[in-house]
Amino acid sequence: MKILILHGPNLNLLGTRETDIYGKLSLDDINSKLGKIAKKHNFEITTNQSNIEGELVNALQDAQKWAVGVVFNPAGYTHTSVALRDTIAAIDIPVIEVHLSNVYGREEFRHKSLISGHCAGKITGFGWRSYLYGLMEIIEINSVKV
Amino acid sequence: MKILILHGPNLNLLGTRETDIYGKLSLDDINSKLGKIAKKHNFEITTNQSNIEGELVNALQDAQKWAVGVVFNPAGYTHTSVALRDTIAAIDIPVIEVHLSNVYGREEFRHKSLISGHCAGKITGFGWRSYLYGLMEIIEINSVKV
Amino acid sequence: MKILILHGPNLNLLGTRETDIYGKLSLDDINSKLGKIAKKHNFEITTNQSNIEGELVNALQDAQKWAVGVVFNPAGYTHTSVALRDTIAAIDIPVIEVHLSNVYGREEFRHKSLISGHCAGKITGFGWRSYLYGLMEIIEINSVKV
Amino acid sequence: MKILILHGPNLNLLGTRETDIYGKLSLDDINSKLGKIAKKHNFEITTNQSNIEGELVNALQDAQKWAVGVVFNPAGYTHTSVALRDTIAAIDIPVIEVHLSNVYGREEFRHKSLISGHCAGKITGFGWRSYLYGLMEIIEINSVKV
Amino acid sequence: MKILILHGPNLNLLGTRETDIYGKLSLDDINSKLGKIAKKHNFEITTNQSNIEGELVNALQDAQKWAVGVVFNPAGYTHTSVALRDTIAAIDIPVIEVHLSNVYGREEFRHKSLISGHCAGKITGFGWRSYLYGLMEIIEINSVKV
Amino acid sequence: MKILILHGPNLNLLGTRETDIYGKLSLDDINSKLGKIAKKHNFEITTNQSNIEGELVNALQDAQKWAVGVVFNPAGYTHTSVALRDTIAAIDIPVIEVHLSNVYGREEFRHKSLISGHCAGKITGFGWRSYLYGLMEIIEINSVKV
Amino acid sequence: MKILILHGPNLNLLGTRETDIYGKLSLDDINSKLGKIAKKHNFEITTNQSNIEGELVNALQDAQKWAVGVVFNPAGYTHTSVALRDTIAAIDIPVIEVHLSNVYGREEFRHKSLISGHCAGKITGFGWRSYLYGLMEIIEINSVKV
Amino acid sequence: MKILILHGPNLNLLGTRETDIYGKLSLDDINSKLGKIAKKHNFEITTNQSNIEGELVNALQDAQKWAVGVVFNPAGYTHTSVALRDTIAAIDIPVIEVHLSNVYGREEFRHKSLISGHCAGKITGFGWRSYLYGLMEIIEINSVKV
Amino acid sequence: MKILILHGPNLNLLGTRETDIYGKLSLDDINSKLGKIAKKHNFEITTNQSNIEGELVNALQDAQKWAVGVVFNPAGYTHTSVALRDTIAAIDIPVIEVHLSNVYGREEFRHKSLISGHCAGKITGFGWRSYLYGLMEIIEINSVKV
Amino acid sequence: MKILILHGPNLNLLGTRETDIYGKLSLDDINSKLGKIAKKHNFEITTNQSNIEGELVNALQDAQKWAVGVVFNPAGYTHTSVALRDTIAAIDIPVIEVHLSNVYGREEFRHKSLISGHCAGKITGFGWRSYLYGLMEIIEINSVKV
Amino acid sequence: MKILILHGPNLNLLGTRETDIYGKLSLDDINSKLGKIAKKHNFEITTNQSNIEGELVNALQDAQKWAVGVVFNPAGYTHTSVALRDTIAAIDIPVIEVHLSNVYGREEFRHKSLISGHCAGKITGFGWRSYLYGLMEIIEINSVKV
Amino acid sequence: MKILILHGPNLNLLGTRETDIYGKLSLDDINSKLGKIAKKHNFEITTNQSNIEGELVNALQDAQKWAVGVVFNPAGYTHTSVALRDTIAAIDIPVIEVHLSNVYGREEFRHKSLISGHCAGKITGFGWRSYLYGLMEIIEINSVKV
Repeated sequence: MKILILHGPNLNLLGTRETDIYGKLSLDDINSKLGKIAKKHNFEITTNQSNIEGELVNALQDAQKWAVGVVFNPAGYTHTSVALRDTIAAIDIPVIEVHLSNVYGREEFRHKSLISGHCAGKITGFGWRSYLYGLMEIIEINSVKV
Repeated sequence: MKILILHGPNLNLLGTRETDIYGKLSLDDINSKLGKIAKKHNFEITTNQSNIEGELVNALQDAQKWAVGVVFNPAGYTHTSVALRDTIAAIDIPVIEVHLSNVYGREEFRHKSLISGHCAGKITGFGWRSYLYGLMEIIEINSVKV
Repeated sequence: MKILILHGPNLNLLGTRETDIYGKLSLDDINSKLGKIAKKHNFEITTNQSNIEGELVNALQDAQKWAVGVVFNPAGYTHTSVALRDTIAAIDIPVIEVHLSNVYGREEFRHKSLISGHCAGKITGFGWRSYLYGLMEIIEINSVKV
Repeated sequence: MKILILHGPNLNLLGTRETDIYGKLSLDDINSKLGKIAKKHNFEITTNQSNIEGELVNALQDAQKWAVGVVFNPAGYTHTSVALRDTIAAIDIPVIEVHLSNVYGREEFRHKSLISGHCAGKITGFGWRSYLYGLMEIIEINSVKV
Repeated sequence: MKILILHGPNLNLLGTRETDIYGKLSLDDINSKLGKIAKKHNFEITTNQSNIEGELVNALQDAQKWAVGVVFNPAGYTHTSVALRDTIAAIDIPVIEVHLSNVYGREEFRHKSLISGHCAGKITGFGWRSYLYGLMEIIEINSVKV
Repeated sequence: MKILILHGPNLNLLGTRETDIYGKLSLDDINSKLGKIAKKHNFEITTNQSNIEGELVNALQDAQKWAVGVVFNPAGYTHTSVALRDTIAAIDIPVIEVHLSNVYGREEFRHKSLISGHCAGKITGFGWRSYLYGLMEIIEINSVKV
Repeated sequence: MKILILHGPNLNLLGTRETDIYGKLSLDDINSKLGKIAKKHNFEITTNQSNIEGELVNALQDAQKWAVGVVFNPAGYTHTSVALRDTIAAIDIPVIEVHLSNVYGREEFRHKSLISGHCAGKITGFGWRSYLYGLMEIIEINSVKV
Repeated sequence: MKILILHGPNLNLLGTRETDIYGKLSLDDINSKLGKIAKKHNFEITTNQSNIEGELVNALQDAQKWAVGVVFNPAGYTHTSVALRDTIAAIDIPVIEVHLSNVYGREEFRHKSLISGHCAGKITGFGWRSYLYGLMEIIEINSVKV
Repeated sequence: MKILILHGPNLNLLGTRETDIYGKLSLDDINSKLGKIAKKHNFEITTNQSNIEGELVNALQDAQKWAVGVVFNPAGYTHTSVALRDTIAAIDIPVIEVHLSNVYGREEFRHKSLISGHCAGKITGFGWRSYLYGLMEIIEINSVKV
Repeated sequence: MKILILHGPNLNLLGTRETDIYGKLSLDDINSKLGKIAKKHNFEITTNQSNIEGELVNALQDAQKWAVGVVFNPAGYTHTSVALRDTIAAIDIPVIEVHLSNVYGREEFRHKSLISGHCAGKITGFGWRSYLYGLMEIIEINSVKV
Repeated sequence: MKILILHGPNLNLLGTRETDIYGKLSLDDINSKLGKIAKKHNFEITTNQSNIEGELVNALQDAQKWAVGVVFNPAGYTHTSVALRDTIAAIDIPVIEVHLSNVYGREEFRHKSLISGHCAGKITGFGWRSYLYGLMEIIEINSVKV
Repeated sequence: MKILILHGPNLNLLGTRETDIYGKLSLDDINSKLGKIAKKHNFEITTNQSNIEGELVNALQDAQKWAVGVVFNPAGYTHTSVALRDTIAAIDIPVIEVHLSNVYGREEFRHKSLISGHCAGKITGFGWRSYLYGLMEIIEINSVKV
């Protein structure tokens, strides 16, 4: 079974920018760690990153054809995208929203999410492990589902 | 004379997602119905769909070179796109905003539109026939114009 | 089958006041045009105009006894009447909200409608043709209903 | 090493009330599951539940004397308690906020948290597994800490 | 030393649309004027325009590899893009926000900028000379820096 | 002694519309039940219903000439009428505001009342018995007054 | 030349209700005083009072057929009537808004007027003399007009 | 059958504080009057008062084990307690919210209730008789229930 | 008896600036007209203009030593000065607020006044005659006072 | 004569937590300093601290039986407790609100107080001396009272 | 060592205006009382009052050349002056904000202060003794400073 | 040709206060630099600074008699002065608003300007060079004007 790990805008800069907020791991580092853990549970991950809102829409629409779930960090589009909200509402597979930093300890406009309401859940503040717990939840749901 | 039928994000999923809200017709079905009606009045339609905000900007900019009007369903970008608002204000041909569902009976953030103020008019709530009446208006304007 | 065309406050001044916004047709002109079109489809229209909120409530309540639908321009009561909202919610026949001008290009308080959420749909910005498309939709629904 | 699992108001009703939202597990069931997992990693949990805001303040203040971290579901006090916010800011051990349901898909006042900003992170929407991932994070931090 | 001149959505229409607001110069005219001035100071400019939010993110990310600064007119994305805000915060080179018209004399939603806070400064209201002063500032900083 | 039972807009539809919210009793049923109870206590009721805001103003103004109190369901005018507020403030007899449904469990705009502040009290949520308790209070005040 | 003196809801109670706020003069007293003053300047007044919003709309529409101006106290409809606003905007004769009490020293919702923007001017706080100065202005305009 | 009469914070001061607002009856007086009336209908009441939010949560949770309904005056917690809201939503027995004074004639923050939406109904403004009508409703429901 | 005519900021420019809004009379013209009218009624006026908020405070404080009332056009300080509000509340003589233009037909921030609540009344929209009616009211009060 | 020194939630942590904001004195240190000063003026203090909102209500209610005034630091309950507001309004002795830090230089939600309006006064920003000046005021009032 | 006692607008009226709010002491009385107390502690005060915002800015700027602190009652400028806020932030000596009345028990716009955040602290509600405690704090800081 | 350089409140402290925000240049330094540059282009500058709002109004009114434009740093009055806004709207010469720091990266109340809408443009964030570019624009306009 396959899982999509989807990264939003600016996450390709990970490990190089503002490392006090986002940590020193690069996006490749994170993807690699997640891949190994998925493998242990006999799952496979596909990773994707885009800075373009509509390409993230495309990726989510596409994922429902082959993936059992998505771990999604919408980054800056979290607070402004009704289009992504509509996509998540439209597709049948669970999407889990994750953030590296604790967005609630930052600027006020980051406290509001247009997307969370249609996700299966939300995890924020644990660096790369926010992805990890999201991945574990997708694995869990697909393993124990009755 | 040509008319652009422009579909915004997630409308490519029509007929497959949330059919209780959006109906069972696919985007092709709608386009095909509109094409036939346009033809009867000796108009021709070109159809386009994109999930990417800027591509919709491009499409609208391009349309003014060859089309007499646009029937446009901005979907999720209705509520968040100043860029599309500026495009509609900038181009010389009339743009009619249409929505399949009655957005005023849904979440509050859908009641606000950044785009409507610069459109020729707005039609909402009649399923594929929202497009139909928009198309008829474009035909009407171009038939009776002095 | 009968259809009610219902006009709200100040619409009796049509054709005489602010013709740059509302056009040069009088209310009689509009009613007459609509009547002819309805006739072609074997429908009959009844027209009514009142400046009094409660008389519009009465007219809507009454219509459900004999009409298959209502094309309603609530004008100034659009933004302030919970009473009309409750009536539309209470009666069984579809009500379509229409406006002559594009209310979204005017004062901000006109962008908010207490009524739209319970209507079958909303059409705004096409002058007398806003009524026309509303009428066509009522005819359509009653012709093709399964 | 010890970890506090702290449950806020009404969580003692778990498994009996609104099971469509909160699931069928009782509080004891959840505590027991968490205890076993902690044990596997050589951690020990202490559990506590109170309906009284100030007793939760007391419990958090007390925990910093003996625990390495707290997994805390503040429930109804999430949105209204500056006192709990101040306690979390004052104590030295990490507190992770968890919620059974996806609060972002419910009433708007539940979207706002006075507490999240001072927590190490927030997990919402995974039923009892929201606690699980919080527990795993506390274990992780205390295992790998340099 | 190189400087990026970056133009946001709809600016490709310059000189053709709403010339009372935006002036009669085309984008090429502006770029050409700026290029000559840069040259006089032994700087070189690269120019770019896109209607797509994410492509602007890409362009900014890319610029920090080769440019000493950016003169950026975010146009319609000024008011709605957290993604662009994050990019500007993440890259190490100074970005100066410029606008052709005085946005503070226009619609209220244009008064609010998500982007200004992370820019080195903001210049608005001087037509193509808003770019000019932005360019001069980048040149100044890179000439006199201690 | 006489008491006015005053019903606002759309209440003439009672028993026929949305019976899940408003119950199956007609307005006549309610009036008849209230009349019998009043009689037992040697009071007499007069009942009135209007869909027109100003007629309700008239009815309240008139009542102070002959009634010892009013049980008033302002329905949709509750949230929008300063005129009715002023009338209630102006007349000397107590007015009790009643609602069939629990307005606080419905749309947010129904939570706000322009009228409650000048009423003797407010009763909401008990179907026809909201009127009953209002009637009992008027009777009580006029029986035990010192 | 004729002038309409138009009184809104509850003003028929003048002199009997809340005399500390509204003074001891009855409506007849005020009308009579205004009539005498108008006469001195060779003008004639017609007076009208209604508690019904739509009847005030009717009166204003009618006035433009025979009056040179209106002195209008919209009372409680000042703050809630878009319909009256539209009427005042539509008719060609000047309407002056007057209030007996200083509305700015009372409840906050009275500070907001939907009507003032389309009136020739507004006078508030001088008891019956608010009408007087409004009348004098109408007389002045019609006497000195070039 | 038993009914809980539950009093919130500061109500133990009744009869001694601000008697112009709250009346001269003590809490014991009110409880005693209610007890007698309940007895006449073969019901029994238990009374409880606490100044502590969480103890009121406890009392409500406990009541559902033995009572057929609750008459609850949440006093100051009405406007600030999500915890009490959640309890009322969770328990199966009807809770009726009562207030001695007409909260709508007092400070604005008292107009908003977090609790009313989940109560069976709300009664405000009748002094101790607010409790009385609440009690009668609980008795009524349990007598006539089918 | 003496009356102060007090002019706020920028009114010294009258007759030269924006004459479409403020008319062609200079401040001297207005003062002179008012002086003549006052004289006819055996009153005397003193006029004053300042662009400095605190000097207006001084002028008002001083006036109560020798004037029977003030006709005051606070201009731009109307909307921002708590200091002037406090002065008007503190002095014993009546102050009447006047404006040349109808402020309610201009920018929204001009609709709000910090000052009106403590004035005897407010007159707006009649050009120099706004002062005239204010003057007449001061004369009236001091002539007919019982 | 006795005075109550009442400390709200988390103040028991004083001297140990966030000493840059709250200073290095423990609660005992502060109480001891205040006790000595009271003694010099022949007053006696009783001190109390609770993390539980309702216990603070209890303490205030109780104090009016034996104390001449209260120096109260409500801490986190300052911004959220209507219950404490009501208690302070209900009791006859003066309550002075004090805060260690300058709350106006911290998060915005700390700028709003539900309690201040019913206190005799408020002192903020002087560390333990905020209590000192509150104590001196209570002593002053009770010494010089006529 | 010298201390500035600075009084804002309208405070020169003290003892004559609204004595129920501000007390019967004149400004001279207050200054004289403060002078004596300062003298006892070997401090000297200079007093100043102005109704002009900018003169208060001047006075504060000047004070840092010769004073060790300022006790400042900004009165009406508290709520509207960014200029004073900037001055207080700019100068190196502590400024203590004082108010005679409890501003939190008055109009809502008085609850908000632009100035408090940069003051050393704030004291409100104790009449002239608000100044006294401010003076004592300045003395204290300058006596015990290490 | 002459240009006015106008400095608002607290700018006389430049170079001494908060040099991390405002830089180390004194006001004289800036004026001197600007004077030299103006001279090169055969323009002359006059400089002025005041802490008093109304004196800035005076200076602007006066400038239109002799200057071709104004470079104006309104500092703290930017956010609060309608009087300055009205002056700028009234005078015929262009006014350019400049700020030393990037106000958009500071407190939220600094993001709102009452003045910008009537200025020719706005420049913020470049230290003394904000004035420089403003000066250059005034020179430019007056050199190339047709």
